[in-house]
Amino acid sequence: MQRHFDAELSELSDQLLTIGSHVEAALARAMHALVERDVDEAKKVIEADRVIDVLEVEIEQACLTLLARFQPEAKDLRFVTMALKINNDLERMGDLASNIAKRSLELQQEPQLKPLIDLPRMAEIVQGMVHGCLDAFVRRDADLAREICTRDDSVDQLNVQIFRELVTFMLGDPSTIQRALSLLNVSRQLERMGDLATNISEDVVYLVEGKVIKHNLSK
Amino acid sequence: MQRHFDAELSELSDQLLTIGSHVEAALARAMHALVERDVDEAKKVIEADRVIDVLEVEIEQACLTLLARFQPEAKDLRFVTMALKINNDLERMGDLASNIAKRSLELQQEPQLKPLIDLPRMAEIVQGMVHGCLDAFVRRDADLAREICTRDDSVDQLNVQIFRELVTFMLGDPSTIQRALSLLNVSRQLERMGDLATNISEDVVYLVEGKVIKHNLSK
Repeated sequence: MQRHFDAELSELSDQLLTIGSHVEAALARAMHALVERDVDEAKKVIEADRVIDVLEVEIEQACLTLLARFQPEAKDLRFVTMALKINNDLERMGDLASNIAKRSLELQQEPQLKPLIDLPRMAEIVQGMVHGCLDAFVRRDADLAREICTRDDSVDQLNVQIFRELVTFMLGDPSTIQRALSLLNVSRQLERMGDLATNISEDVVYLVEGKVIKHNLSK
Repeated sequence: MQRHFDAELSELSDQLLTIGSHVEAALARAMHALVERDVDEAKKVIEADRVIDVLEVEIEQACLTLLARFQPEAKDLRFVTMALKINNDLERMGDLASNIAKRSLELQQEPQLKPLIDLPRMAEIVQGMVHGCLDAFVRRDADLAREICTRDDSVDQLNVQIFRELVTFMLGDPSTIQRALSLLNVSRQLERMGDLATNISEDVVYLVEGKVIKHNLSK
């Protein structure tokens, strides 16, 4: 029974890595669409979000089936219930990547406001966080999870910096307002993806060590 | 055993209603602080978010304990795993209410941009959704849950309307940009709360009828 259960857990981990790789790809392609002003790519990202939605529903079913059939205890139970939450968060990250693609479609209807440098940097950090938090989960690696949490500070700093820069644009020339708002929105989607990856990492620490580090409650 | 389990489920429902009532109060008070320009009230909302954080951790523990001790099946299992997700979403709504309080503190440092009419209307609908989706969950009322989902359209429409109005302000007078951005942020927090209440309602339909209505996958 335990061996069968372990096989199912490993299958569940693979499913989460699969949905995670779709989210990573969606983010990378949405950013490519934004930077290269590629309408087709943006549309493909928006369309591909459906795949992530379907995977989410499948993984949720798999988790419920696992709980019902094997009635796992302690760490195994925590693993499956965390998988449920992580799955939910990954689906939301897919929506956020799709939102970036939508903003890129808006932006492509107007001349480029400025060369994009900080947003791609921010996206790169976030992509590493998404990949890393899932890695930490399936390998039950609390050290990696803690390290991922620290990266969120750089994301937040970039978000503040981008906000200030874009407000300066708006103040200097009102004709930039619409475009600046779209870029602000992209920055915010990235910041939210970073937050979700941080939430997942905090859950991984709880899974491995039984310690609640979210909300700074242990301080 | 089943009677004992039912008692624990009912206790879990009460805990969710409690955290839900804290979220509703946080939203109502944050909006009051915003409209009445009340610094003290805003600070209290930000501080009180800690209570919501602590409740979230307690409820998560309660869910895990329930799963481990009673190993529920079918509908009961779905109820507890949904409770886990709903709990998580309620804690996020608490953060969003707290963000509104933070924006109100920023706005109080400058003269009022305009009388606030649409934002309080939007907040009222969202508050009803938060209350309603939890009600639907504990009463397992799929009809109510579906009705809550339809209310999200009004929230989205108000969000678009508020966005347009504030952009018009910014275009007409750059000195309004900072304040308009803060108000846009409030509108977005409300829109996200509406989305989360919709997600919960979709989960309630799944709990009661076994039908997946999220992502429009059943279409």
